[in-house]
Amino acid sequence: MRKIILGTIIVAVFASLANGQDASASARKATEANLKEFVDAFNKGDAAAVAAIYATDARLLPPNAAMVEGRANIQTFWGGVIGAGAKLVSLTAIDVNVSGNHAIETGKYVSTAPATGGGTTTDEGKYVVVWRREGRDWKIIRDIWNSNKPQQ
Amino acid sequence: MRKIILGTIIVAVFASLANGQDASASARKATEANLKEFVDAFNKGDAAAVAAIYATDARLLPPNAAMVEGRANIQTFWGGVIGAGAKLVSLTAIDVNVSGNHAIETGKYVSTAPATGGGTTTDEGKYVVVWRREGRDWKIIRDIWNSNKPQQ
Repeated sequence: MRKIILGTIIVAVFASLANGQDASASARKATEANLKEFVDAFNKGDAAAVAAIYATDARLLPPNAAMVEGRANIQTFWGGVIGAGAKLVSLTAIDVNVSGNHAIETGKYVSTAPATGGGTTTDEGKYVVVWRREGRDWKIIRDIWNSNKPQQ
Repeated sequence: MRKIILGTIIVAVFASLANGQDASASARKATEANLKEFVDAFNKGDAAAVAAIYATDARLLPPNAAMVEGRANIQTFWGGVIGAGAKLVSLTAIDVNVSGNHAIETGKYVSTAPATGGGTTTDEGKYVVVWRREGRDWKIIRDIWNSNKPQQ
């Protein structure tokens, strides 16, 4: 009986460790796919599809603006940015730390926007995005970024 | 024997749930104390004490500047900001999500800096700070913030 219990515990511990690695790999894969979807939806001008990548209770923390709370307001925010002609060149994850039901992603972005005098300006910066597992998917609950460029 | 095993499992599950709540409460208490220490050390001009609140491999993502990597570089960064006369009025947590060995804190800050024409300017903004458990303490591994004020 003792051997069976001990065996069961050992199997359970290894299964749990393996699950942890699986969960981590699957989180990285899912968040990477969602990031790609984010860029595609943004550049198509589909603010609703961008907003659908966020949890309903997400918080967006944009530079030089107040915090935006909830998916509906996040859709309005990105709708405005898209409407002003912004495009995403890239979102690139530097690392993703999976911890429990959350994944903390650090990355960099490149974006463009119409310049006031005509033409296009490019911005480069960095972000922290926090994902939360929701069933089989991962949704953004926190999104904050800022520019690398000196203040003008 | 079955009853003993079942009893042990039930005790283990409840102990684990209670531990989860304890861990969450203790994380909130520890991060709150560290936040207070951050403000005190900053306003005393002690960049080394500020940097000691970060993990050795932490990443700092300041607005309008490149990413700063590692505790030593973070100390240099904050030393420069302190040397320029900045003061922290407050750091206030809005919420702290504890997940595994990480705690994701969202909050707001108020800071002051000498104005170019004399006097003082006040800045208000928001931040996401990610803490990681290190033994009995919690250290910052990611720190990103931005201003609520329109770009000038």
